[in-house]
Amino acid sequence: MSLSVETCLSPDLLGQFDLRGKTAVVIDVLRATSCMVAAFMNGADHLLTFENVEECREKKKEGYWIAGERNGVQVKGFDLGNSPLEYLREDFKEGKFAITTTNGTQAIELSEDAESILIGSFPNLSAVVKRCEKYDRSIVLVCAGWKGKVNVEDSIFAGALAEGLGDRFRKWDDATLFAVQAFKQNKSNLLDLIKSGSHAKRLKGLNQESDFKFCLEKDQFNGVPELWGDKITLQAAF
Amino acid sequence: MSLSVETCLSPDLLGQFDLRGKTAVVIDVLRATSCMVAAFMNGADHLLTFENVEECREKKKEGYWIAGERNGVQVKGFDLGNSPLEYLREDFKEGKFAITTTNGTQAIELSEDAESILIGSFPNLSAVVKRCEKYDRSIVLVCAGWKGKVNVEDSIFAGALAEGLGDRFRKWDDATLFAVQAFKQNKSNLLDLIKSGSHAKRLKGLNQESDFKFCLEKDQFNGVPELWGDKITLQAAF
Repeated sequence: MSLSVETCLSPDLLGQFDLRGKTAVVIDVLRATSCMVAAFMNGADHLLTFENVEECREKKKEGYWIAGERNGVQVKGFDLGNSPLEYLREDFKEGKFAITTTNGTQAIELSEDAESILIGSFPNLSAVVKRCEKYDRSIVLVCAGWKGKVNVEDSIFAGALAEGLGDRFRKWDDATLFAVQAFKQNKSNLLDLIKSGSHAKRLKGLNQESDFKFCLEKDQFNGVPELWGDKITLQAAF
Repeated sequence: MSLSVETCLSPDLLGQFDLRGKTAVVIDVLRATSCMVAAFMNGADHLLTFENVEECREKKKEGYWIAGERNGVQVKGFDLGNSPLEYLREDFKEGKFAITTTNGTQAIELSEDAESILIGSFPNLSAVVKRCEKYDRSIVLVCAGWKGKVNVEDSIFAGALAEGLGDRFRKWDDATLFAVQAFKQNKSNLLDLIKSGSHAKRLKGLNQESDFKFCLEKDQFNGVPELWGDKITLQAAF
């Protein structure tokens, strides 16, 4: 029997999906999930996510690096913003991180009904595909979007992931069909397309275009961050 | 200044959009808005829409043809279901209709903040484009979807509409960008793509595949049904 792959194009649509017994992959290409993967590339021990800025800030006292952004701008007094390149810096090596972002951390919290919650980004795309196949359960791809609106980069990543899955995962909903088409059509010029998207225009305004290349470069890392209890840890490496 | 075109891929996302001062186009290709356009092709005087089946049924006493479907199946005791070909029948010529459907009529009610609400379908695509251009306001394309989930046919129609608009309407959100790409990629084989969509699979099960051709054939009619007060009437013909 074929397993289903559904794509939730905005967290505001999650009510339409039954996550129980399924694998959820949370996707926030620009840039929350790319940052999380970067942290593990740099040897992070674990991450905690927070919806609330002040709760996140409190973790500083316990030796966490505190990372947070609102509307694309680093929260005042925090150690890091939302640029994955920062997470790769030598001084953050093997650290533990408390993170809050506009869209990505909320998408993780909203996915709590799922059997497993994986963190997906282009830098660990193939590893996420392998992990999903290993779990051998139906999948919901949860795009973080931007404040509830659908965005190009998360949808296209969902398409790349669905397209990469093996033959057992071919029961697609319409949003997945769409996302796969969009990925296939744009894979050779992803950077151009994403630059024309609304989110990229916001980032450009914030002078952070240099993050794009990191966030769009596939398979830099063979690990999959995964939520276990309240921590995101590196559960699988291939 | 360029006017914006935004695409709301599911009525559950309408909270993200500010409809005030804008033109809303409600889209339910399979099949509510295609049926409405068919009714006017057959000379309908006006339509009323209802969320509630029993309120709709009451209108029979006032000489309305009552039309309704739930989960794709005609409501018991109603004159019509949700097949556009029925609306073209001689005995319904120049009638007035009370309509309730699973997705389409709700999408109309949820769009009430808009300055104008137009009924869009492939059979009146170019007429809707002209009407939108005449209004010269920003546009929100409201896809009815299927019980809140994104569907292929409404999204692709949104893409066809956005692509058809003149140069003044080029400020697209990401969902519109996506929809236009999907339309361009699939316009030569729309029927095949829509057959592979989830909704079409449901219709096939209901033995109503014959509606597809009507619902996907562009520009059969030069009129635009529009909501004025509580009635949908033919406000523009080109």
